[in-house]
Amino acid sequence: MAALSQQAVESAVDAYLQRDKSLCKYVKQTEAAINTAQRELDEMAYELLAQEQPMAIDLRFIIAVIKINGDLERIGDQANGIVRRTKEILRIGEADLPVDFAAMGEFAARMIRSAVQALLDGDARLADAVREMDDEIDRMNHRAYEDLLKLIEMQPGLTQQAMNGILVAKHLERIADHASNIATDVIFWIRGADVRHQLSVSVD
Amino acid sequence: MAALSQQAVESAVDAYLQRDKSLCKYVKQTEAAINTAQRELDEMAYELLAQEQPMAIDLRFIIAVIKINGDLERIGDQANGIVRRTKEILRIGEADLPVDFAAMGEFAARMIRSAVQALLDGDARLADAVREMDDEIDRMNHRAYEDLLKLIEMQPGLTQQAMNGILVAKHLERIADHASNIATDVIFWIRGADVRHQLSVSVD
Repeated sequence: MAALSQQAVESAVDAYLQRDKSLCKYVKQTEAAINTAQRELDEMAYELLAQEQPMAIDLRFIIAVIKINGDLERIGDQANGIVRRTKEILRIGEADLPVDFAAMGEFAARMIRSAVQALLDGDARLADAVREMDDEIDRMNHRAYEDLLKLIEMQPGLTQQAMNGILVAKHLERIADHASNIATDVIFWIRGADVRHQLSVSVD
Repeated sequence: MAALSQQAVESAVDAYLQRDKSLCKYVKQTEAAINTAQRELDEMAYELLAQEQPMAIDLRFIIAVIKINGDLERIGDQANGIVRRTKEILRIGEADLPVDFAAMGEFAARMIRSAVQALLDGDARLADAVREMDDEIDRMNHRAYEDLLKLIEMQPGLTQQAMNGILVAKHLERIADHASNIATDVIFWIRGADVRHQLSVSVD
């Protein structure tokens, strides 16, 4: 399921950058598969809790999985959001936007990859690193927002295209937030510590 | 904790509608209290699972609570987002926007109230009703977006104010999404059925 979510994000970013309709379709199929996997995974976690009555670290792992499951599913939703923006830009026409979406997409994808790796390897230090990356994508999103707002003020004819860009940046920032949530749950599982609200994780 | 989240939303909407700085401060304090409550509640759920090894409906209830807990905390984040927009509008100056934020805020607050009530009463039918309300707030948000985009195109000087309005509408729509998530978890608890992805719940 983590692999599917990661693929959904990477394909959505490629679909957007290359204006590729068939990649859009692929993302939608992947999202449907993620939704199915989410139901199965929740069911399995429930069965495990009911039948095995796990203790301590196993119990923390299952709780972490239930939460991570929700974040992976929402990552799929965000990837789908990028696909909707891609179809919109194909409809309303292109404009040069002053935002490096490739860099932003790569950064968000790297956060997901690292969060998933931290989960698979039980690596709390890698999870720490993911949480620290969150500030950078917040900055990228903020810069994109400011620059596209300026563009709208100077060229109101590009309002729709600029808004489209603002929303794509926002989707990427929210994907990064979910990666950060996953990292937090990995740390809870490994260290038994609740790190939420210690670092400032902005969820906007 | 549900009461705190509900209060945070209602106060944030009032703070925005009345441009009230002291209400902004109150929302921020409430959000901090929600974050503390979230940690305690997760801890309690963990202790219960570890020590009592609950079965069947009790187990489903605890799993639902762990998830609902996450949604309540994110509702607090969204309320805080409305507060940030309120402070921004105080800074950048007023503009008449063609959006009925009072109606939208009341609708979102009603969804939270009903979702919380469904949880407290174990009322799956009320939870169904909350899920059905989600489409209406999606429509309200879509209309606000379209109307504010038109405003920007006609009066680029109001871009910042219009963007502020777009973001407030988006926060309200996301609050409603969380209410809908809570309703889904209540239904899972009561009926043991997983209703996600049967109705189309848009998470944007």
